[in-house]
Amino acid sequence: MIIIGEKINSSIPSIKRAIEEKDVAFIQDIATRQEELEIDYIDINAGAFVNDEVEQLTWLMDVVQEVVDTPLVIDSPNPIALRRGLEKNKNKKPIINSISGEKERWEVVLPLIKEFNTRVVALAMDNRGMPETADKAVENAIALVNKLTAEGIAMKDIFVDPLIRPIGTNSEYGLIALQTIQKIRSEFPDVHITCGLSNISFGIPVRKLMNQTFIVAAMTQGLDSAIMDPFDQKLMASIYACDALLGQDEYCVEYISQYREGAFNL
Amino acid sequence: MIIIGEKINSSIPSIKRAIEEKDVAFIQDIATRQEELEIDYIDINAGAFVNDEVEQLTWLMDVVQEVVDTPLVIDSPNPIALRRGLEKNKNKKPIINSISGEKERWEVVLPLIKEFNTRVVALAMDNRGMPETADKAVENAIALVNKLTAEGIAMKDIFVDPLIRPIGTNSEYGLIALQTIQKIRSEFPDVHITCGLSNISFGIPVRKLMNQTFIVAAMTQGLDSAIMDPFDQKLMASIYACDALLGQDEYCVEYISQYREGAFNL
Repeated sequence: MIIIGEKINSSIPSIKRAIEEKDVAFIQDIATRQEELEIDYIDINAGAFVNDEVEQLTWLMDVVQEVVDTPLVIDSPNPIALRRGLEKNKNKKPIINSISGEKERWEVVLPLIKEFNTRVVALAMDNRGMPETADKAVENAIALVNKLTAEGIAMKDIFVDPLIRPIGTNSEYGLIALQTIQKIRSEFPDVHITCGLSNISFGIPVRKLMNQTFIVAAMTQGLDSAIMDPFDQKLMASIYACDALLGQDEYCVEYISQYREGAFNL
Repeated sequence: MIIIGEKINSSIPSIKRAIEEKDVAFIQDIATRQEELEIDYIDINAGAFVNDEVEQLTWLMDVVQEVVDTPLVIDSPNPIALRRGLEKNKNKKPIINSISGEKERWEVVLPLIKEFNTRVVALAMDNRGMPETADKAVENAIALVNKLTAEGIAMKDIFVDPLIRPIGTNSEYGLIALQTIQKIRSEFPDVHITCGLSNISFGIPVRKLMNQTFIVAAMTQGLDSAIMDPFDQKLMASIYACDALLGQDEYCVEYISQYREGAFNL
């Protein structure tokens, strides 16, 4: 699994406050603790700052890169913020979060991927917005992956996001997400598939239980990445167990090593 | 999910002792507590008693049926024990555990299914023993289901068991199990698929974590029953969460009700 830590996001109140107060130690602590968990990427998002997102995002980039080498995911709907964030990047190849099939977004983000040689999260969305069915999401994903590869972006640099919606609003959304993942995986064996994991559990009780359940179900269908909370120990344990179950951890070496390090003392 | 409680099994030392000591209260307490969890079946197994299995099994049948109405799974490799157990059955339609494609077993168990009008666990095994690959397990399962339905056994009365083997002995066994379940489900949308759940985790640490992970993965592939420990609260919670995730719990009504009853205070 390619784990993208979601903890440095200005939509989290304590992070927003730390950014406002320029609390370097607080941000760096969150960054360092994510890196210590040996995750693959750290997401950086300052989107809550509508008027000064560019300034806050670039500040975050500097602060975080002072203490961690983990590659970053530069997460913004704002192409100027993306560019300024990318200019600040010193860690290894970053991921842009995100491009989509929406004309306006496609046109401004594609040049950034090429210019800065990045990987990219590709939302299964077109000009008509969020897909209502698995078939439509798959159609969007296929079209977008084909457009990206036609532009020379390598399959392994694309992280398709099937757009997870909360099962609390529609009992079918879990099945739709799982079917979408399964179909994208069977169409593109080498693309990465990621998602904002906790969207699935929005509005229902015991969200962590549902998040753990969903990650296992989704990995079984071909998900190989998630934007998630790496501090959720049960979620991390579910991922280690599922990797072993799916034959991606030969002789259960990593599972047993995590066990010995106490990661499963839940 | 059709949950078969596995707690009255003579391979469990405390149960074996209770049977030896004719400790009616102990057995009845285990039976009652399983019934209180609203599971679908209670498995009854006296197979550890090589010399007097028939006597012990029939004693168990009487003792258990004094206190619970939950239908029973009569679990024995011994056709005489199965017959004597079935003669004792007073609860609703039982399940025989098990038939297989092995000639000897097929010939003695098929008449019992018909005579006593039971449901049956059908092991994906033929005369050549345990299947080594998913394809072979699926081939065995298809042949057996076709033979059973040709004999007039209804699809809904067949519980195919894909035969789960421990991932601790071969890292591929998890994938093989999941692929087998998925293929059986796509071949027979209406058959039930069950398994001895905890086999998957034999020999590795933190077995409960792996069991929870496996049940979610397997349900995602089409498993709709399990022979399992209903006293494992996290396992039960995973099942409720997965039912909601898979759209089998409209508006998450059961999930929220279990939450309110405290089932998720783990």
